[in-house]
This record gives sequence, C-alpha cells and structure tokens, in this order.
Amino acid sequence: MLVVGELINASRKAIGEAIKAQDAEYIKKVAKDEREAGADFIDVNAGIFVGKEAEYLKWLVTTVQEAVDAPCCIDSPDPKAIEAALSVHKGIAMINSISLEKDRYDALIPVIAGTDLKVVALCMSDEGMPETMDARLKIAERLIDGLVKNNVPLENIYVDPLVQPVSTNNTFAVEFINSVEAIMTRFKGVHTICGLSNVSYGLPVRKFMNQAFAIMAIGKGLDGLIINPLDKMMMASLVTAEALAGRDDYCVNYLKAFRNNQFDFLG
Amino acid sequence: MLVVGELINASRKAIGEAIKAQDAEYIKKVAKDEREAGADFIDVNAGIFVGKEAEYLKWLVTTVQEAVDAPCCIDSPDPKAIEAALSVHKGIAMINSISLEKDRYDALIPVIAGTDLKVVALCMSDEGMPETMDARLKIAERLIDGLVKNNVPLENIYVDPLVQPVSTNNTFAVEFINSVEAIMTRFKGVHTICGLSNVSYGLPVRKFMNQAFAIMAIGKGLDGLIINPLDKMMMASLVTAEALAGRDDYCVNYLKAFRNNQFDFLG
Repeated sequence: MLVVGELINASRKAIGEAIKAQDAEYIKKVAKDEREAGADFIDVNAGIFVGKEAEYLKWLVTTVQEAVDAPCCIDSPDPKAIEAALSVHKGIAMINSISLEKDRYDALIPVIAGTDLKVVALCMSDEGMPETMDARLKIAERLIDGLVKNNVPLENIYVDPLVQPVSTNNTFAVEFINSVEAIMTRFKGVHTICGLSNVSYGLPVRKFMNQAFAIMAIGKGLDGLIINPLDKMMMASLVTAEALAGRDDYCVNYLKAFRNNQFDFLG
Repeated sequence: MLVVGELINASRKAIGEAIKAQDAEYIKKVAKDEREAGADFIDVNAGIFVGKEAEYLKWLVTTVQEAVDAPCCIDSPDPKAIEAALSVHKGIAMINSISLEKDRYDALIPVIAGTDLKVVALCMSDEGMPETMDARLKIAERLIDGLVKNNVPLENIYVDPLVQPVSTNNTFAVEFINSVEAIMTRFKGVHTICGLSNVSYGLPVRKFMNQAFAIMAIGKGLDGLIINPLDKMMMASLVTAEALAGRDDYCVNYLKAFRNNQFDFLG
C-alpha cells in the first residue's frame, strides 16, 4: 500500500497561510508528522495561488525535502508548475495527475514520457466525470495505452478511478470499487490510487465512512491512497485491511502496529 | 443485510449456566437486547449439552419467542435436535446448518425438503475444510444443487463459505471474500452468510479486524452475518458498508443510524 500524505494542500487554511508567509518551519513540521505517521510520498499543492503556483510548488518541494527523506507527489494540473517543481525535486517524484482531458494530456505527456516518474492517471476526460465502471475502464485503457506507448512502465502508473459521492447516487461507491477490481485484473502490474473524502460528501460521520470505503476498496485490490496519515483510525484500518487482503505475511505489519500502540485510539 | 444475533450460545459461560439453571429471564433479556439492537434472527445453540441438546433447544426457542417477535436460527448439526426445536418454533426458522458431510446432509435433507425454512449451507465436506475459492465453489454448487432439487428455493439458501484465520495463512481472508463474490455472481438470487470471529483467531484487536472483514466481505456481496448485534462499532460498520455497497437508497438508513446516535461510540 502506497500512502500519499495529503495535508500540504494550499486549500487548507493553515497551509495556505504558511505558503503565503513562506513559513518553512510550519510546512516542515507537517511534512515530518506525515512521514513519521507512514506517508511514502508527501503531496504538495499550491493550486489556489493563480500566477504563483509554479514558484510556490518549487518552494514547497525544497522545503519538504529539507525536512524529510521522502519524495513528493506534485499535485497540479499545470505542466509548467509541475516542471518547475521537478526542477528542484530529489529522487523519483509522483505526478498528480495526468488525465484524458486533451489539453492536460497533450501538455503532460512530454514531461512524463521516458522518465521514471510515478504518474497518477485520473479517469477524467473532456466528456466529464465517468459514472460507471465501463466508462472508467474505457478512460483507464486509453490512459494506460498512451502512457505505456510513451515509455512509462505499467508499474509506475497509478490509475485513479475518481471517487464520487454515494449521497448523490447509491451506485457510485460500488461502481468505483468494481472499477478498481476490473482495472487491477485487466492490466496486471498497474496500480490504483484515490483520495477518499468525496465518497462521503454531504453525509455525517465522514471519517468513519471514508475508512470503511478504504477497507472495501483494498478488498477489491486498491494499493494506493491519498489520505491524512495522522488519522489514526484510517491508518489502523489500512494495516488491518492489508492483512485481510493477503498482503501481510504472518500478519507481521499488523502485529507491529499493535505493538506500536496504533490501535490505542480504540480505548 | 440479514443479521443473526449470535449471543444465545451455550458455549458462552453465562448462557450455558442460564440454560442449565433454566433461567428464562436471563435468556429473554439477551434475546430482547439482540432484537432491539437490530437482529433479524436470534441464534439458539445448546451444543455443549450432550444428550440434552434437543430438550434445551426446544426450551430456548420457546423462551426466546416469548420475549421477542422474531424467528430463531437453530444452531445445531443434529437433525433430531433441529426437529425438536422446529416442533415449537413459530414462524419461519433458519437452520444452521446443513453441510456436504454425508451423514449430516442425508439426515437434514428430509427435514428441510419442500419447506419454507431458511437454510445455512456450510461449505464443509467429508474431505475437510476448503481453503481455496475453487474448493468452496465446488462444495457450494453441490449443496445448492441438492437443496434446489429438494424444493428449497434459491432465495432461502444462505451459503456460508467458512471463514478461516488469516494468521494461519495470509490467503485465507482473500479466498473467503472472493468465494462470496463468485457464489453471489454464479448463483443469482442465493445469499451468503458467515460468522466473523475465526478470521482474527490468534491475533490482537480482534473486534476491529472482524469489522474490517465484514466491510470487505459486504463489498464483495455478502448479505448475511452471524454477529453480536450489541457491538456498536460492528453495527455502525454494517450500515456504513451497506450504503457504500449501494443497498441504501439516498443513504436513508445511514442517516437514520446517525440520528439514532449509532455513531456516538466514536466520541
């Protein structure tokens, strides 16, 4: 399970203010907290700063990598901002994300082609957001084909089937998890990843629903998540779901999590 | 989701003592608690009392049905004990369980054939416990065929693929949930059911793992559970998983559970 820590996102008030004030210490603290809690990649997003996104993303990458020995997940639809961030990034970054929207696809392919970058391939096209498994599969297939033809190894592709709120349509969560299963089955070696919070949009007790959705999706094969790694119930759910999904020989990680008091939140 | 309350089981110390002492008030209280917490069926088990199982099962059925307006799940491998319990049962009981073990199968078919009884069909044969999805499917197919030929409608069959501990073999939970999916897909209209606690045998934080396993299995199509309905996290997990599985139009039940404070255990 690849965990991307989602906290360093300018749309969160404290982060937006820290970016504006160039408060490196605060950003570093959040990055360290995320890393210690188990994040493999630290997401960086400066999307709210129109005109300054490239500059701020560079600063975020540099600041985060001064604090932690981990790669960043560069969270932007803008190729210019992504290239700026990559110019200072150490190690192998993740790009979040390419999609099948023509402008975004055409501009990002040259940045990604032939590299070792990990790429989130978002199931979105100019026709809008897919609602069914079939619609997602069609987009995923074209994205995977395009990336592989451009010498991006299947193992570096993380398909994001795009989570939609179950409050809007009671099939939306099922179509998502079935998409995960279909993509993981059809394209052996590819990965799947997603954020969770959209699923519970408009409903109460969102954290609980989000973690249940994570468990369900892991049961269908999901192997990447963009989450808040400081959410103790979520992290305990992941280690538990991974054991159940057959990815934890002798339950070693589950037992280690127990010894490290990661279930203590249960009281 | 069909919920069978599992608490009235003689192997639990307080229940065993209450049965021995014929303490009807205690049994009635547990039955009422289970029913109020959401159990559709009340499981009754007197398996530890060799030679007196039939007599005690009859007493349990009568006692439970004096307290609650709900059917029982008659939990015994012994056709004689089951027949005794059925002789006093009001409404449509569930039999827990028939299996492919020859003696048990041959003795139970005449009891079940042509009735409206609901039947748990346990994936166990004289060759022992199945470990893979394929082995489970073969047993399930033979059980379903045999029951349907004996005029048990598919809709009254609840296949129990048999949960085994993930601590013993890291594939055991995956093989189970994949069996649920395969059975529900291949035999349209049949149900699946299981107890959960075996999955976490030998591990710490069992309740948390059990509820994660329930969520995962519901994502694969499971629609029956034999559980402790007084476990608040479990019941909250079920209502959440059902919403995510597309079985709760407009999240009505999820929102109702929220209004009824069923998530308050989260603090």
